[in-house]
Amino acid sequence: MQNFFTPKSIAVIGVSKEPNKVGHIIFKNLYHKFKTFPINPKEKQILGEKVYSSLKEIPHVDLAIIAIPVGGVIQAVHECGKKGIKHLIIISSGFKEIGNIHLEYELAKALHQHGIKCVGPNCLGVFDAHSGLDSLFLPPKKLTRPKPGGISFISQSGAIGSAVLDLLAEEACGFAKFISYGNGTNLSETDFLEYLEKDPQTKIICMYVEGIQNGKRFIEVAKKSKKPIIIIKGGKSEKGAHATLSHTGSLAGSYDIYKGAFKQAGVITADSLQEVFHIAKLFVTLPKPKGKRVQIITNGGGYGIMATDELELQGLPLAEMTSKTRNFLKHHVPKIVIISNPMDLVGDATNERYGLALKMCVDDKNIDLIFLLILHQTPLIDENIIDVVKAHKGKKPIIILSVGGKQTQILSRKFESLHLPVFAFPRDAVSAVKKWAEWYS
Amino acid sequence: MQNFFTPKSIAVIGVSKEPNKVGHIIFKNLYHKFKTFPINPKEKQILGEKVYSSLKEIPHVDLAIIAIPVGGVIQAVHECGKKGIKHLIIISSGFKEIGNIHLEYELAKALHQHGIKCVGPNCLGVFDAHSGLDSLFLPPKKLTRPKPGGISFISQSGAIGSAVLDLLAEEACGFAKFISYGNGTNLSETDFLEYLEKDPQTKIICMYVEGIQNGKRFIEVAKKSKKPIIIIKGGKSEKGAHATLSHTGSLAGSYDIYKGAFKQAGVITADSLQEVFHIAKLFVTLPKPKGKRVQIITNGGGYGIMATDELELQGLPLAEMTSKTRNFLKHHVPKIVIISNPMDLVGDATNERYGLALKMCVDDKNIDLIFLLILHQTPLIDENIIDVVKAHKGKKPIIILSVGGKQTQILSRKFESLHLPVFAFPRDAVSAVKKWAEWYS
Repeated sequence: MQNFFTPKSIAVIGVSKEPNKVGHIIFKNLYHKFKTFPINPKEKQILGEKVYSSLKEIPHVDLAIIAIPVGGVIQAVHECGKKGIKHLIIISSGFKEIGNIHLEYELAKALHQHGIKCVGPNCLGVFDAHSGLDSLFLPPKKLTRPKPGGISFISQSGAIGSAVLDLLAEEACGFAKFISYGNGTNLSETDFLEYLEKDPQTKIICMYVEGIQNGKRFIEVAKKSKKPIIIIKGGKSEKGAHATLSHTGSLAGSYDIYKGAFKQAGVITADSLQEVFHIAKLFVTLPKPKGKRVQIITNGGGYGIMATDELELQGLPLAEMTSKTRNFLKHHVPKIVIISNPMDLVGDATNERYGLALKMCVDDKNIDLIFLLILHQTPLIDENIIDVVKAHKGKKPIIILSVGGKQTQILSRKFESLHLPVFAFPRDAVSAVKKWAEWYS
Repeated sequence: MQNFFTPKSIAVIGVSKEPNKVGHIIFKNLYHKFKTFPINPKEKQILGEKVYSSLKEIPHVDLAIIAIPVGGVIQAVHECGKKGIKHLIIISSGFKEIGNIHLEYELAKALHQHGIKCVGPNCLGVFDAHSGLDSLFLPPKKLTRPKPGGISFISQSGAIGSAVLDLLAEEACGFAKFISYGNGTNLSETDFLEYLEKDPQTKIICMYVEGIQNGKRFIEVAKKSKKPIIIIKGGKSEKGAHATLSHTGSLAGSYDIYKGAFKQAGVITADSLQEVFHIAKLFVTLPKPKGKRVQIITNGGGYGIMATDELELQGLPLAEMTSKTRNFLKHHVPKIVIISNPMDLVGDATNERYGLALKMCVDDKNIDLIFLLILHQTPLIDENIIDVVKAHKGKKPIIILSVGGKQTQILSRKFESLHLPVFAFPRDAVSAVKKWAEWYS
């Protein structure tokens, strides 16, 4: 499958002069980075580059991207086949998702006949943050591309996929490969999963699926995966499932069956789109946990109580610190500090008080995970708190919680750029941390 | 209680020269806006203003704010009483929240003896975005004050309260009054609730409580309220409840009992801090709904499916448009558009297509609420979509959903500044909209 991500040469079939048209945007994304041949019998030159009237005029290419109206797609596939091109991305829509079952069948047959591997149709195709391959027909000013990193995303929905890419471009954790496979006529979710499992740049695999084509094979492949797989399912409800039919032509099936299969496959099920990336962020940033016992450190009583509530309600255990930790702190912090769980450093907490509490908890064998709640509004802490936390990074999983306005957001970004994960709300943090920690156990 | 918010004159007892100290920050927040007398027997001048050595040296004031160490508080209360001051904010901590039950009792007795109304102790006090009264000891560079508006917030926790203020300063909806009442020794949640119910600037009342002192009275007052009351409870779990004891000295009690009482009182229970303001935002921005039937309009199939899933799973009904709407659209939009619920305008949707779909849904008697999903990443819509939506504002509740990076966030801010509520994630939107809509039914 490597040709989908690092081809030596590419043909884009259907490159228009119109800057808003799909083929034009794709060509523009590619031609500076790859040897790219634009094909359009009606044009001579686009973006200063020679346009070819057909595939016959160009040398062999590793990958062809088809972005023409549906009526010409089957013929284009045959032409690619005759040319010996074995990898195709078909952006064009108008197949089973609008009821054209026969055309979908014709397409499948043509691909099979020529032994072609194909992403699509009815999709955005592929984005590789490392190689720069980019078949997304959404201009960069509308959809910022994320920087290179370890999270890959397989998405049956192009729109969800693109929104997520755009969202992640704002985050510090970075991206590896994105595959929007639409109808999945030829290659589908399990094929990409199998590929990403072996891809050295991919550390975590995220998926949005509406249906899974071969459940048994999916479970087999997922079960063998050494990389975490985080999945969000579209069409969980009856009416949602009905809507998937006209979206990607998927028969979504009962969500209970899917949930069972995901569990059997060792896959993490996210409850919301947001949670997919909350969980992925934890895998990217945190060391492996030794257990699930959480110690809360806070400078805001109510915030600590809300985190305590969520841990207990969602079923993560609260740690009980050793008497050594307790006694040490008793002699080294003001009397007003509540040395318990939650540990309340109270509103006049300083960077130093945080540093001491954090050090003791990192060294405490009864504590597996640290929820470090920092309300930056209080008067005596300042941005040096970042260095205080950084000094303990990697020794034990530290999850930061901070809620507030501009100043908080700036400091949270700084933490995240150091690969220290930050959440604003206890409910989100606990839900993601629980799923992340359970994957290891 | 008006003297807590719009006093003619104020004494601040315990104004230090140190710019990081509580009394100093409070005095600095006030002295430009109110006739304010700083009291400190050890200082002559602070911020260029004359400092008074005791209350005896100043004329009568409407409000005194006490920010001295706990040991001197009872005496200061007696001095205020002798001076005839009837309104006190006591910032100082060190009472029942650290086990000083006797001192708490002494304080209650002193306040009662002089007929003083008091906010606190162990609190941040009061912030009024309209009058500018501000006893928060967190400097503005750390905690941005929100602009005037209609949301008021009563908080037993100072830290939660301050974080929320800071968070809301970033939002477009605006703020009325904030009361952090800490131990609630004298005045407590129900007193403030009763006051805000009559306050003309307050449109929506939000509350963070750990315990409620007089449940029966709370239910009576809340039941009578014509304004929506949104509540989040700290100490829902056993360990969380235990932690409230050392926070505000509250006995939190069983959450099931609270939930029952809140329901009986017609109060909206939020599941997370975030949801409190999601719900409040809907009350501030949307017209009253006629019912709960939701029509989804989207340009991203998968995003529409996720919204459909959430509506069905959380129990909000999907609307069925009239045949008039269906037939009209059939003749006026491209064939590829899926005229159903969700209505998928597909990836090449234009502003005009959105405008047409929105107009028809606004006019459709079978539709009560519109979920308008806009993925700004798609090529053919641009920022003029804002004017398209604005044209229908106020006719029917329109809830916008948009997820993405920088460009999306800029456009979402613009929508919100026009009082059109925006959510990123379907789960959050559905949960808040359901609670908001049910309040009217």
